[in-house]
Amino acid sequence: MKGVKFAGIVCGIKKNRKNDIGLAIFDKPAIACGVFTRNSVKAPCVGITKDRIKHPIKVLLVVSGNACVCIREANADTLLLSSALARKLGIKDSEIALAATGVIGIRMPVDKAVRAYPVLIDSISESHKPFSEAVTTTDAFEKVAEKSFFAGRKKISILGIGKGAGMIAPDMATMLMFIFTDAAISRGALNAAFKESVAESFNCISVDGDTSTNDMALVFATGTADNEEIKSNSAAFNVFRKNLKQVCLELAKMVVIDGEGATKLIEIRVKGAKTIKDAKQVAKTVANSQLVKTAFFGQDPNWGRIMAAVGRSGIKLVPELIDVEIQKMHVVKKGYEAKGFDEKKLQSALKSKEISVVINLNNGKAETVFYTSDLTFDYIKVNSAYRT
Amino acid sequence: MKGVKFAGIVCGIKKNRKNDIGLAIFDKPAIACGVFTRNSVKAPCVGITKDRIKHPIKVLLVVSGNACVCIREANADTLLLSSALARKLGIKDSEIALAATGVIGIRMPVDKAVRAYPVLIDSISESHKPFSEAVTTTDAFEKVAEKSFFAGRKKISILGIGKGAGMIAPDMATMLMFIFTDAAISRGALNAAFKESVAESFNCISVDGDTSTNDMALVFATGTADNEEIKSNSAAFNVFRKNLKQVCLELAKMVVIDGEGATKLIEIRVKGAKTIKDAKQVAKTVANSQLVKTAFFGQDPNWGRIMAAVGRSGIKLVPELIDVEIQKMHVVKKGYEAKGFDEKKLQSALKSKEISVVINLNNGKAETVFYTSDLTFDYIKVNSAYRT
Repeated sequence: MKGVKFAGIVCGIKKNRKNDIGLAIFDKPAIACGVFTRNSVKAPCVGITKDRIKHPIKVLLVVSGNACVCIREANADTLLLSSALARKLGIKDSEIALAATGVIGIRMPVDKAVRAYPVLIDSISESHKPFSEAVTTTDAFEKVAEKSFFAGRKKISILGIGKGAGMIAPDMATMLMFIFTDAAISRGALNAAFKESVAESFNCISVDGDTSTNDMALVFATGTADNEEIKSNSAAFNVFRKNLKQVCLELAKMVVIDGEGATKLIEIRVKGAKTIKDAKQVAKTVANSQLVKTAFFGQDPNWGRIMAAVGRSGIKLVPELIDVEIQKMHVVKKGYEAKGFDEKKLQSALKSKEISVVINLNNGKAETVFYTSDLTFDYIKVNSAYRT
Repeated sequence: MKGVKFAGIVCGIKKNRKNDIGLAIFDKPAIACGVFTRNSVKAPCVGITKDRIKHPIKVLLVVSGNACVCIREANADTLLLSSALARKLGIKDSEIALAATGVIGIRMPVDKAVRAYPVLIDSISESHKPFSEAVTTTDAFEKVAEKSFFAGRKKISILGIGKGAGMIAPDMATMLMFIFTDAAISRGALNAAFKESVAESFNCISVDGDTSTNDMALVFATGTADNEEIKSNSAAFNVFRKNLKQVCLELAKMVVIDGEGATKLIEIRVKGAKTIKDAKQVAKTVANSQLVKTAFFGQDPNWGRIMAAVGRSGIKLVPELIDVEIQKMHVVKKGYEAKGFDEKKLQSALKSKEISVVINLNNGKAETVFYTSDLTFDYIKVNSAYRT
């Protein structure tokens, strides 16, 4: 993509000898917006980056394998990571946005990173591949999504690169997500489009209900597409917004598909709620239910667990109004087992890798969609032995 | 125990040929109090029993293997279960308290139960063993706790029998629990003592964060101990309350130990919170964290996951004040890794079946204790194939 170059190499923080330090360098300083973890226990990089992106950014530095948090030296180490890089590149510390991901409470091996800077800088190229590998931790695959469209006669691109597989909950970004665009766009328009995109993508997925200390989603706009600046009231704004949302949603789904140990992508659509808040509350409760998630892993059409999860979601509801469909088959009608429900047929339909659940509360007009994964033996395997 | 007899046989609702229908019959009508599921999707037996225990109860009927809920005929079936028994026993329907537990959304085979009533009634004896088996579903062992004490010169007994292994969350009773006492006690005193006991036992445990449609905890007092009636201001009230709480807490811990697939009982003590509500919120978030629970299964001293869970609990807190101890070893001091923390030593201490976690927020005086289990391969095994 025009306006941004990438690098990624092995510096030795991750044990698996995969790239663990990455750079994105902008041809022109990029305006940036971000959404950050709501966890009260935050890595220093969260606050530092949140502050720095108020001004244009020249470089994004990502370190994976260590979250650099809950350690007395974490703040100093984080600042050192960025000041050493700034010196090498001849830019200001404050022009670097930075993110870290990995284990909590182990000191960041800053030396390893700093020693790698010369090789890292030498490897800068147009390919985003080394960078997208450097961003991952327990991810089984790299997460990249791209869209292009025209604003007037100028082609605009949006490229998203992210990581996330565990500690994924519908509460803020809950992952690292970096979106790059060459669009010329006002800060206000970029911010509005991004907030909306995040709300309807990264904030609507759940793998295990945990959220991390380091989550952030950042968008960078370099303006190198030379289009007329997009403003919130431009004709091009809606097109930009739609494409940005699609990139975010594609990445969000990839995270769920890659949910640690996951074998299925489960879409949970809640309809007929009184308010969006109610709809989200129900979707989130079902999406996080261990019993629902294990049932789908077992391909067991156990819709009772969905009803039980809906019932405990805490919103006011009338059980006798609720309809539930799984794989487009009615399983619950007005709170009871649907007439003609064919359990064998549904069981067979549950073999699919994509599962659709529609819960209609028949109690209003608000609607939402969440994505979750099933809960499997491999989730336990990955997470019980994460560090050992 | 004086004043109550039991029965339990196989009627064929459960597939495993274990007792699945049970009776407790009181020599004298017992006053009863209860705590019921807060799930909006409730089995008919919940409402029926809640209503009936306002008056003295002669018989408790428990059916396991079928929850009798989310089925159009569930209410009629539940009433039929009790009216057929009332006829056999020559008592009123309303003198029967009833509970059901098991799969949701499958019609209760009422015929099997009713056909079994004559044999069930013939088998009534002083032994609670057949009844305690009849109460279980996925439980690996039966849950019975008993205490005796003196009120004046009269010996008083409290016997608790319950079930619970999955769908256990710190939100209401979340299981079936039946407590029997021969104490003569006023309804007000019994109710006060029971509410408090439930709050500090059954409502402080978590296996998987799910809550069921059928949960109830009931206490029955027959007065057959012939003691002077205990009132809220009697000297004996505190002794009764203390013993009742101990019975409830023992049963609650048994449920966690028997948490589906669990290998460890984890005690999470939260201290130094501004309010009890804050303390509970933190304890509940840590107790329900899949990442914390899998780490303990893996005997991995990954305290960063505890800090991340505390941070996302949603209460206002100062990370730099938090201390965490695991197995009495300081792992976090003022928000950072504790000096002298010996990871190898802690790893070895995590081999224990009982784990203690103390989180001090150092931000107030409120304190609470929660109990949870680890999350294991066997949880997935049990729950992915529950019905198939």
